[in-house]
Amino acid sequence: MDTSLQAFLQSQSSPLNAHLMESIQTQEITPTLKDAMMYSLEAGGKRVRPMLLLAVLEEFKQPLERGYDAACALEYIHTYSLIHDDLPAMDNDDLRRGKPTNHIVFGEATAILAGDALLTEAFALISQSPHYTPVQKVELIQLLSRAAGAPGMVGGQLMDIEAEGKTVDLLHLQKIHALKTGALLKFSIDAGALLANADERDRVALCTYAEAIGVLFQIQDDILDVEASSEELGKTAGKDQVQEKSTYPALLTVHGAKHERDRYFRLALDALRQIGKDKGLLEAFANYIAYRGN
Amino acid sequence: MDTSLQAFLQSQSSPLNAHLMESIQTQEITPTLKDAMMYSLEAGGKRVRPMLLLAVLEEFKQPLERGYDAACALEYIHTYSLIHDDLPAMDNDDLRRGKPTNHIVFGEATAILAGDALLTEAFALISQSPHYTPVQKVELIQLLSRAAGAPGMVGGQLMDIEAEGKTVDLLHLQKIHALKTGALLKFSIDAGALLANADERDRVALCTYAEAIGVLFQIQDDILDVEASSEELGKTAGKDQVQEKSTYPALLTVHGAKHERDRYFRLALDALRQIGKDKGLLEAFANYIAYRGN
Repeated sequence: MDTSLQAFLQSQSSPLNAHLMESIQTQEITPTLKDAMMYSLEAGGKRVRPMLLLAVLEEFKQPLERGYDAACALEYIHTYSLIHDDLPAMDNDDLRRGKPTNHIVFGEATAILAGDALLTEAFALISQSPHYTPVQKVELIQLLSRAAGAPGMVGGQLMDIEAEGKTVDLLHLQKIHALKTGALLKFSIDAGALLANADERDRVALCTYAEAIGVLFQIQDDILDVEASSEELGKTAGKDQVQEKSTYPALLTVHGAKHERDRYFRLALDALRQIGKDKGLLEAFANYIAYRGN
Repeated sequence: MDTSLQAFLQSQSSPLNAHLMESIQTQEITPTLKDAMMYSLEAGGKRVRPMLLLAVLEEFKQPLERGYDAACALEYIHTYSLIHDDLPAMDNDDLRRGKPTNHIVFGEATAILAGDALLTEAFALISQSPHYTPVQKVELIQLLSRAAGAPGMVGGQLMDIEAEGKTVDLLHLQKIHALKTGALLKFSIDAGALLANADERDRVALCTYAEAIGVLFQIQDDILDVEASSEELGKTAGKDQVQEKSTYPALLTVHGAKHERDRYFRLALDALRQIGKDKGLLEAFANYIAYRGN
């Protein structure tokens, strides 16, 4: 990984994690529910989405403190989606980020409720933030609810389930991914641009970058499911084939998927060239997402 | 039922239902998900929460159009909570409002996602409303997210599950209900008062009324579970005893529960007397909630 990106991620990891936990920890919440919410938040992962949001603020030389509440709301949404996705009725996963999934530890009912609570908390956190004007709060909530809800992530998740066991063409696969994983990744960039007061030209370029990042993320996810071990991934490898999921490697071969990945990586860099700001961090982020090992 | 309340409910039923459906119908949502969301919304029910919100506006002589978006958001939250509560991992109910529950019709995965989507849509609808100022949107979202989330309804739902099969005292039972059903009922009054620009004295009185209404709703719910048939209720009667739930009749006998209900009804009316506005509709609403037959 690029050393400046590594330094940035390391410097932001502790404050971001502290903020993520504190917003839940300080509330009066019945203990089992609080434990279940904290468990999946603490299980961690790479925090790609909130870090992308913070990276946009960094590139635009804005105070990062301004990004934390939106970044944590985003991570709450991402975490809830993982808890629900792992349920027996959905992907039925026992392992996530190298740890037993939420319903394995707390039972299904509590896992469903912990997901519901994290989803709701995302909007509570933004609406109560001391860092945003009412207009910014409303814009953030509009963006996040659209990205996370039926016209975004949840819709994509349903399309993904419906596509299991079916042959799906590349266009349809990209539509699924654009909603299922792309919408929330795009929110991280959109929210960063909004909070950085980026001008219209920069926002358009960042939007293109965000869309390319979303595709890159998914292609590499599919490639890793084929090529990496469960140990490397911290989750069950090879599941796509078992579940007969349409993936980039399944449609294009692994070689073809890698070719497509390289093409989107170049698209992401091209978009960044349109921006009149430093962009080394966002370049490094694209590189990391495209070529990560887990 | 009081005739003026009946006339009010009848006059508002069609526009409210139309608004509830239209906000989902007009969006680009993948068909199965949209169907599942609409199915549970159309299953209807009494719309107690949105109607309470509108009734506050009516008493304060405010245009009711102002209430629809908040009322629909509230009903989305209520509907999502029913879909998730009915899941096999939770209450495992096959019947709701006289119709098969969401997961019976669409399967568990889709039911979970339809619930997630409705929950998210509640915040989308308020944030996009043309009827509220940014400050009103933020206040509504703060109130709603707190009432619906971990410190409110979801927390109460978890406490309710944990109390199954245990002996719980009246104070703990009231805490559970204050969160599980009370918080969202209270939001309907709070949001109405906010949108009606009620003054501080009226808001305090309405708050007391709302808390009494919440208790009344639950006591009568418990009584009906004992005394009414599944046909009358449109859901399985007698479930509380089967699930060994702590209820008012279980703790106080049916006779004692009815005595408590009458006491809270008087408390609700006392609170209304503090308000310097018409309150016939809210009186009739309390009467309806306390003595309803299903």
